[in-house]
Amino acid sequence: MNRAVVARVVGLILGIEAVCMLPSFAIALVTRGADREAFAISIVLCAVFSILFSWIRPAGQRFQTRDGFVAVALCWIALGLFGALPYALCGFSYVDGVFETVSGFTTTGATIVAAPSALPRGLQFWRALTQWMGGMGVLVMVLALMPSLGEGSVNLMKAESPGPISSKLLPKTSETAKSLYIIYIVLTLSETIALRIAGMPLFDSLTTSFTTISTGGFSVRDASIAFYQSEAINWIIILFMFVSGVNFSVLFQVQRKRWKDALRSEELRWYAIITFSAVALISTNLILKAGKGIYEGISQSSFQVVTLMTTTGYATADFDVWPYTSKIILILLMFVGGCAGSTAGGIKVSRLVILWKGLKREVRRILHTREVRALTLEREGVAEGTVSSVSVFFFAYIFITLLCAGIVSLDEVDFTTAFTAALTTISNVGPGFSLIGPTCNFAFLSGLSKAALTLTMLLGRLEIMPLLVLLSPGVWSKK
Amino acid sequence: MNRAVVARVVGLILGIEAVCMLPSFAIALVTRGADREAFAISIVLCAVFSILFSWIRPAGQRFQTRDGFVAVALCWIALGLFGALPYALCGFSYVDGVFETVSGFTTTGATIVAAPSALPRGLQFWRALTQWMGGMGVLVMVLALMPSLGEGSVNLMKAESPGPISSKLLPKTSETAKSLYIIYIVLTLSETIALRIAGMPLFDSLTTSFTTISTGGFSVRDASIAFYQSEAINWIIILFMFVSGVNFSVLFQVQRKRWKDALRSEELRWYAIITFSAVALISTNLILKAGKGIYEGISQSSFQVVTLMTTTGYATADFDVWPYTSKIILILLMFVGGCAGSTAGGIKVSRLVILWKGLKREVRRILHTREVRALTLEREGVAEGTVSSVSVFFFAYIFITLLCAGIVSLDEVDFTTAFTAALTTISNVGPGFSLIGPTCNFAFLSGLSKAALTLTMLLGRLEIMPLLVLLSPGVWSKK
Repeated sequence: MNRAVVARVVGLILGIEAVCMLPSFAIALVTRGADREAFAISIVLCAVFSILFSWIRPAGQRFQTRDGFVAVALCWIALGLFGALPYALCGFSYVDGVFETVSGFTTTGATIVAAPSALPRGLQFWRALTQWMGGMGVLVMVLALMPSLGEGSVNLMKAESPGPISSKLLPKTSETAKSLYIIYIVLTLSETIALRIAGMPLFDSLTTSFTTISTGGFSVRDASIAFYQSEAINWIIILFMFVSGVNFSVLFQVQRKRWKDALRSEELRWYAIITFSAVALISTNLILKAGKGIYEGISQSSFQVVTLMTTTGYATADFDVWPYTSKIILILLMFVGGCAGSTAGGIKVSRLVILWKGLKREVRRILHTREVRALTLEREGVAEGTVSSVSVFFFAYIFITLLCAGIVSLDEVDFTTAFTAALTTISNVGPGFSLIGPTCNFAFLSGLSKAALTLTMLLGRLEIMPLLVLLSPGVWSKK
Repeated sequence: MNRAVVARVVGLILGIEAVCMLPSFAIALVTRGADREAFAISIVLCAVFSILFSWIRPAGQRFQTRDGFVAVALCWIALGLFGALPYALCGFSYVDGVFETVSGFTTTGATIVAAPSALPRGLQFWRALTQWMGGMGVLVMVLALMPSLGEGSVNLMKAESPGPISSKLLPKTSETAKSLYIIYIVLTLSETIALRIAGMPLFDSLTTSFTTISTGGFSVRDASIAFYQSEAINWIIILFMFVSGVNFSVLFQVQRKRWKDALRSEELRWYAIITFSAVALISTNLILKAGKGIYEGISQSSFQVVTLMTTTGYATADFDVWPYTSKIILILLMFVGGCAGSTAGGIKVSRLVILWKGLKREVRRILHTREVRALTLEREGVAEGTVSSVSVFFFAYIFITLLCAGIVSLDEVDFTTAFTAALTTISNVGPGFSLIGPTCNFAFLSGLSKAALTLTMLLGRLEIMPLLVLLSPGVWSKK
């Protein structure tokens, strides 16, 4: 492993974290908040460690695949540990601070804060900003800002970007990263303006846009989006959540006005089909079994389906009291998640499409013994290596979910709570069911459970492999 | 598809079903039970349809892979539909009868009978015998009895035997089938004698042995094995359940005194490790959190771990009131199941070992980019085709479980009930948690739920593929 390069990347990331805390510090100063000191100390600490790490001079700039994975894993752990400082210095326990920060960066949105509206403004802003930073990927940001990170930097992007197949949109990694961030910023600003026009206060509009486009789900209001009591706001957010769950390479084509290419995307089609079917099923269930009106049923189910499937995790209704069939469909959607290459979490639509096609191929194999055809996705053949990676990923996903549920159950919480806590964190959704439903929070859990859930959020966001690579004994050898 | 051969096999199976009903009829006659007429009519109906189907003269005897799969699927459906007649004629609804029969043949052991001890003796015997027939496989029985079924009959065995890799123990399919049945019968008789010596009545000993060796789980007593209040009986049953969850090719080696080969089995080692770890974890949990004594904790956890992991499904304790951590471990075990090539259900240990090794290989691939090694199991390379079949199987397993849970939830039962009902049926266990816990039964569910669960039992027992092949449009073409 090229330890020096890895250390330098971690140093860079801490520097970026220090810089990203500046706006929150400014807000704290302007609002004379109780969090002024907290941010001052945190910024200094991040900067000091950043400089320390940057002193290490790498011998070569070559980045191997595994260096990319290790760097990404370590960067995200560092982001969590240092990003927790403002919380810890504002009176939260450090474990809670790390939980909240990792929940932010991984765009999970699970919270230990019972009343976010009571937090100082600077901290509110930091909480939303961590989601925005994590959504597109912090290392992607590094690549966009410093194209000179050296050869093989594509491995950083490969390790941080979600999905089974990572494709470069442009010949240069840095340009791909830049164009992704441009789309990301345009979406964020558009939503801010739309929400402002719909009557949301400016601070709320900005922070809500941060947490929508990143499919994060933190809100500055205790009742989440339900606080605003505005159908216009709800539908604006539904739209932007849905768009953020789309593969950014499709959005890239839209930006270049290649409409036809964009609409030909197979994953997009499945994503839309799943979303609309779920809305149809749940609204029917709500109208027939929960006595809701037709518009109310459609509106509430649309919001909840999109927010859980894109793994955002806002709430406009307490879906924990909905009929059980609706709840099970929502749980299924939490597994699915958004498209690959989006800011959404979950298993990703394209992975499930590959598995589904694998199943169909298996049946065909029995019917026509000698036929062996490669799977296709987006009209291209999928390498067998990718198919097996996807399968193994699916297995690891389920296994980690159940293992994490087992650890959470040590707190003597019911099966639904333990299971959906594990699921909502690995899929980076936010709320779950029962004791961690949309009207509750994670504060009551033990330190062990919080630590397990924090790790599970990281496993989900980084799609498992980087952390497993970090834990394998071979990786620390010099070669 | 070779329709004529398939029809002939279904006819054969119905004939065997008629013959297998004879002992129950005899018992009904001797005990002057209310079920005399029911069995008489059922036997006649099975025989008539058997003869009708046997009239079809197949042009050729050639069996292709898909013919094997279709024949197995249709036979099992026929067994369920006709085996339900005695129940239906004794006053149960036909849907309940099919549920109970399929639960029998698939060795699930989920029941709609609140008080099995109140059933007529003949029906009690039939209920236990369906499990014994289903355990080793009804078509395997056909192969053992009629070696002349023709070329390609190995495809029948392939489709009915559980596990990712089906190996012939002896050069001839019929001899393999015969030697498997000999082991099966020896185990059944040994357990009957052991239970009789431990003080269980003869009828109970025999029927309990039927449902232990087949890892079925039906009991003639309302309180299941808890009724006997005997530690000796508990431990005898634990031993035989554990043995029945072992790959029968290992037992075959034991029978031939090839002890070394038997003990070298990698799957056996994992099976033992999982069992003992689960017992250790759950007894600790029970002793520390539920205030049980040390012996009581070990004894109860041993029984419940082995009964759920081997997917038998007896009960000696109401594990639904155990601490949540124990319950989640038990749920995990229900996924795992026994070894491939045993009578147990579940995903099977060897499949999980293959997936686990696939995950490790994936990590190695990132560490050493150019290395590609084949997976090994039992010191032999696993074909990539098998690895992908296993992955796809795992995906389909989870997908069907969640889909079935969704359908059951339409009855407005809680998530735990719906989820564990689906899991316990696909894994062929029997009891679940909450409303379908070890002290409850499935009678209260709607017809739709029962139908879905019945189908899920078949999917689990036949390991999904045969039923999917049956449903694929291409299969019904003449070619």
